[in-house]
Amino acid sequence: MKKLKVAIIGFGTVGQGVAEIILNKAEDLEKSDGVAFEVTAVSDMQKGSLLDATGVDLAAALNAVKEGGTLESCGGAMPGRTAIETIAECDADIVLEATYTDIKTGEPATSHVKAAIDRGMHVATTNKGPVVLFARELIDRAAAKKVRFLFEGTVMSGTPTLSFAMRNLAGCEIRGIQGILNGTTNYMLTEMENGKPYDEALAQAQELGYAEAVPDADVEGFDAVGKVVILSNLLLGAKIAPGDVDREGITKITPGQIADAAAAGKRYKLIGSAKRAAGGAIEASVRPVALPLSDPLAGVGGATNALTFDTDLLGPVTVVGAGAGRTETGFSLYADMIEIARGA
Amino acid sequence: MKKLKVAIIGFGTVGQGVAEIILNKAEDLEKSDGVAFEVTAVSDMQKGSLLDATGVDLAAALNAVKEGGTLESCGGAMPGRTAIETIAECDADIVLEATYTDIKTGEPATSHVKAAIDRGMHVATTNKGPVVLFARELIDRAAAKKVRFLFEGTVMSGTPTLSFAMRNLAGCEIRGIQGILNGTTNYMLTEMENGKPYDEALAQAQELGYAEAVPDADVEGFDAVGKVVILSNLLLGAKIAPGDVDREGITKITPGQIADAAAAGKRYKLIGSAKRAAGGAIEASVRPVALPLSDPLAGVGGATNALTFDTDLLGPVTVVGAGAGRTETGFSLYADMIEIARGA
Repeated sequence: MKKLKVAIIGFGTVGQGVAEIILNKAEDLEKSDGVAFEVTAVSDMQKGSLLDATGVDLAAALNAVKEGGTLESCGGAMPGRTAIETIAECDADIVLEATYTDIKTGEPATSHVKAAIDRGMHVATTNKGPVVLFARELIDRAAAKKVRFLFEGTVMSGTPTLSFAMRNLAGCEIRGIQGILNGTTNYMLTEMENGKPYDEALAQAQELGYAEAVPDADVEGFDAVGKVVILSNLLLGAKIAPGDVDREGITKITPGQIADAAAAGKRYKLIGSAKRAAGGAIEASVRPVALPLSDPLAGVGGATNALTFDTDLLGPVTVVGAGAGRTETGFSLYADMIEIARGA
Repeated sequence: MKKLKVAIIGFGTVGQGVAEIILNKAEDLEKSDGVAFEVTAVSDMQKGSLLDATGVDLAAALNAVKEGGTLESCGGAMPGRTAIETIAECDADIVLEATYTDIKTGEPATSHVKAAIDRGMHVATTNKGPVVLFARELIDRAAAKKVRFLFEGTVMSGTPTLSFAMRNLAGCEIRGIQGILNGTTNYMLTEMENGKPYDEALAQAQELGYAEAVPDADVEGFDAVGKVVILSNLLLGAKIAPGDVDREGITKITPGQIADAAAAGKRYKLIGSAKRAAGGAIEASVRPVALPLSDPLAGVGGATNALTFDTDLLGPVTVVGAGAGRTETGFSLYADMIEIARGA
């Protein structure tokens, strides 16, 4: 049996989500792939760090942080140890980067990713910061070290989109993408279509934990812009930054516009899209679009996400699935780990 | 550069479709993967056989059969050579099986597949016959010879479904599937919803080449049953045959039923589904279902196909795309070839 040592950097919702999956699926994975993942390090800025070359007690660690607690009382606790120090000392095969996202600087995640790659470790991350800003550089850096840098969870959480395009659609040319890439705004638009005004739809999204207290990242389209940048740079050979994406959020959509669209057999969706224009330039945008009901994206309601790839050989191919969630996003890291294990 | 020799068995629509892709994409594939596919044999029951260890002239072969012609005048022509003889002599790395489907006996395709595997050749097929009847046996036979037996194109043509489930959803448990697996009937139901009676919808589907003169395989649900069997046996660990699937076609659906469904906010779709029932038995069916418009499958119109996987970690994940077509089905073989090249 092949054993791969794993370090979890960032032990919030996503870090805990993947830890639960690693625990629950260990037996299945051993059977299907002859692989065992052993978590030898956990590091979280608030909760502390664990390091144990023989494997940390993941169940105990999950239990310790359950009610907002820290890792201090767990075996292998390393008081004051930082993420960078943990990466330097953990001797892991795979580092999972799941700290908080800063889309402006990409830090501290980018430093974590670089530190791990430079030590010859594979990296999987759900963190949009490093990927929006430095995907190509980090992919090349990983390739030079003969390791993988994967980030399935940065788009539509664990629903396979990047791996789908890179592996399953290999051989097709991807000419463009368009999708519903933000679950919060799609939930709100669905509620508005059911008659709620914007403010009520937002309040409900906040109550359900979909939207933040300051909801700008979602409702102004910034979150979707990040995903359009990732997709454009990875799949369309673009080299764009968030500022290159035409952006309009959903804050100005009125109940009247939604009713008018419905009367015309259409439905508003916040659509992120990118395509190669004549001359090779990339046209990328995030904006509300009134789609005809016959469009596969029009039927995608609630917090669900969907992404259509326009291809030369297959025409349009669409993937519909969860766009967020503890287990769903945790799964993206697990899927990346399996991909690394199968290739490693 | 890695060179892989390919034999094309069956040079009808699908065989020609993949040949065109191999020709058109050669340069791209060399650049992306450092792989070249060289077709060293073509064999077709009606059109004749070609064999040339240095590579047949694929463009000439495509041109020769364009207007219903044969391969007789092409270089490397082997008058009277059968498919089995061609497989025995072609020394290919990969055999593409694209002869006609016989879902009752699986022949002659199953004999072709076995002959190729037994000679240590990888096999990719679009032929539902061998896969519906003998998938597990043929997968095991290939594994024993350390070669792959792939059949992406048997479900939703080249739209990735089987590889999606096996590779991208690895780590998830797939608890069930449901989908629109037949494009002809979905086209007809869409037309009926637009006001056409059954007979007119069928005539139009026949005119467009979607439906056969004897349309039973589509309209009675047999085609979808085959796909449900393939999905059940491959993804749900079932061991079922077509007779184990509860089957009802679309021939008895009346305009009145369709109107009633529309009034209730629903839409009829011919749904193929399978799931593990309590106790572990598989419940599999193909039948018309009036879906609420909020279901991702309800919005799939025309000849498009769609398949939802119910998973433990991601919830429902749906893939929507082409279900048929010369290039689309040809692409499924090409995708299988790339998968073999990447793993080989």
